[in-house]
Amino acid sequence: MNSFQFYNPTKIFFGNGEISRLGKETAKYGKKALMVETRGTLEKLGINERARQLLEESGVEFIELSGVEPNPRLSSVEKGAEICKKNGLDIIIAIGGGSVIDCAKAIGFAAFDDGDIWDFFTLKRKAKNGLPIGVVSTVAATGSEMNTNCVITNKRTQQKYATHYEFSFPKFAILDPELHKTVPKYLTACGMADTISHVLEGYFDGCENTPLQDRIAEGVILTVIENEGILDGLENLIKRSNLSWAATIALNGLNDAGRGGKFYDAHTIEHEVSAKYDIAHGAGLAIVHPAWLFNLCKKSPEKFVQFAERIFKIKKGIKSDLEVGLEGVEALRNKFKSWGLPITLKEIGVEKSMLDRLAEDSTKSPEGIELDKNEVLVVLESCYAK
Amino acid sequence: MNSFQFYNPTKIFFGNGEISRLGKETAKYGKKALMVETRGTLEKLGINERARQLLEESGVEFIELSGVEPNPRLSSVEKGAEICKKNGLDIIIAIGGGSVIDCAKAIGFAAFDDGDIWDFFTLKRKAKNGLPIGVVSTVAATGSEMNTNCVITNKRTQQKYATHYEFSFPKFAILDPELHKTVPKYLTACGMADTISHVLEGYFDGCENTPLQDRIAEGVILTVIENEGILDGLENLIKRSNLSWAATIALNGLNDAGRGGKFYDAHTIEHEVSAKYDIAHGAGLAIVHPAWLFNLCKKSPEKFVQFAERIFKIKKGIKSDLEVGLEGVEALRNKFKSWGLPITLKEIGVEKSMLDRLAEDSTKSPEGIELDKNEVLVVLESCYAK
Repeated sequence: MNSFQFYNPTKIFFGNGEISRLGKETAKYGKKALMVETRGTLEKLGINERARQLLEESGVEFIELSGVEPNPRLSSVEKGAEICKKNGLDIIIAIGGGSVIDCAKAIGFAAFDDGDIWDFFTLKRKAKNGLPIGVVSTVAATGSEMNTNCVITNKRTQQKYATHYEFSFPKFAILDPELHKTVPKYLTACGMADTISHVLEGYFDGCENTPLQDRIAEGVILTVIENEGILDGLENLIKRSNLSWAATIALNGLNDAGRGGKFYDAHTIEHEVSAKYDIAHGAGLAIVHPAWLFNLCKKSPEKFVQFAERIFKIKKGIKSDLEVGLEGVEALRNKFKSWGLPITLKEIGVEKSMLDRLAEDSTKSPEGIELDKNEVLVVLESCYAK
Repeated sequence: MNSFQFYNPTKIFFGNGEISRLGKETAKYGKKALMVETRGTLEKLGINERARQLLEESGVEFIELSGVEPNPRLSSVEKGAEICKKNGLDIIIAIGGGSVIDCAKAIGFAAFDDGDIWDFFTLKRKAKNGLPIGVVSTVAATGSEMNTNCVITNKRTQQKYATHYEFSFPKFAILDPELHKTVPKYLTACGMADTISHVLEGYFDGCENTPLQDRIAEGVILTVIENEGILDGLENLIKRSNLSWAATIALNGLNDAGRGGKFYDAHTIEHEVSAKYDIAHGAGLAIVHPAWLFNLCKKSPEKFVQFAERIFKIKKGIKSDLEVGLEGVEALRNKFKSWGLPITLKEIGVEKSMLDRLAEDSTKSPEGIELDKNEVLVVLESCYAK
């Protein structure tokens, strides 16, 4: 185990009906809010309307920034920041999933800046302050509700980059499984893959002697798998609850505390794919992450034996580490496939001629990547088609 | 899973040598500190002296409250509060284990009060504010470094009661496994039993559908058991690290989030024992907790099957739930015994004639208890002698 710092001050309100706290909690931090939201489903379901009522009842004035995209755009961030500055808003409320929450975080620090906001993502400049953020999470997936991660897509440059500031921790996050009931099957599966992918990045970073961290990671993965029945009954609130808490725990810092602190390579590669093809992040991970794991397993299979045994009950017997390890990764890929997720780049419309560019751009991520271009290319080619 | 709130803003600095951060971190919150510490070992080992130097280097003035007892006394709290008030101190630094940290927390809110401090423990009055607390943890056990728990013993009334305030979360806690190297074998084992006991209270509270919480609890227990080799090589820093992080995670709110929120009965009963006999809390738990589990298992053995299988690899086969469950609890008791811990009340000098009074007083705990007096008596009698 390595030395580490762990700090996570986000207050979680978890449970069916907890959205009712939105107004009162918001009022503790601000009186003039920007309400960031998607258009479409949440509007139809009345979730946005419920949020409006709750803010009004607590005397919180608000302006809405509607229609934030999946893979949220820099242009939405700029628009939101402009509204905050012009109207002296003092808190941002995100009603949505990771895209909306990330957009809210970026608006939070963009509102204190008059320069090119993209500088904070290319790491040319550092943001100095952020507006307080409150969250109502409407899908179990990214864990953004309880961390500082903020991933934004710049369509102009076709880049999707992340940044992290301590002031981006949401002040509070409401995790209300009832709001997750209407997430469609495909997006539910994407969230499940995303959750598993988050813990696997740290799990396989090569750091030794992290037994408790490993058990927590395995607990997250097993919880997701044991609740996969959600895909055959989307309104099951018990399963929604378990998936929601698993997604939040997966990326709230706990799994990574004391690990090697390496880059999230599978995520970095996937970001290039979704920056250019605009697919759901979880779907991209279902393709890229097993491919990345196959590649790593061939180099150092030891930890994969533990993974195969504890997650998929694959007995080692007389098999080699490599054989067991590859069997474990194959089981993971089959699991993703059984959930209806894509497992090849071809399926999502990637042209073979693009692989070189995707590999090249992956290595330019400002946050860094462990693999070199050729290794990324090997990973991408191995998951291009079955 | 039940609805819950989770909030834990303590900043953790974990790793060998991390004590070096003490001065700078303290200076962020205050300039005039009360340094709370035990006498004896830490003084001899030079840990207190190191802390003094670090505070001085960062320009933090301090007054020392030395000699805080195991099972810390109300009298120490009163003394510390008096020093804080008289000298206008603005932060409290605890250098020690759970006793010292709990004492520091109590001083923190006693310093704002002029009445009878014991009122806050009998729950007659509520404390309104607390001084910031910083912690250097010197033993893996109570988890007090990352929670609001504060357990104080009133020798006058022979009561040992707990209280919890959000402002008692330490601002920062330094977990430096190098400082744990010199904890003697017996106290190390006590800490291990304490850690396991903390997660078992919630694990067996009867709440259903807590798969992730269960995996985290089991992860804590398995980590402790897998690192039991520490007792044969006390200076092993890898094992010290794993035990330290397990102890902190065991009682930082994560395991209990979404569970039934029942009272910690085994702890409440043990508090009566250690209030009157002044034994190490972990030793008392090694006696009382298995006895309490045997009693519960006889009433509802279902969850015990999971415990026996996942922790001790006991196969169910054709055995009944009750048989497997009891086997699991027996395995736990044997584990404690193998670590050199007592497993009967007789061993620690309890007179049989005292059982009735211990049972009676357990039911008077201001925090509440699930069992009635007769049930507590059954538990106490079952662990009186082997």
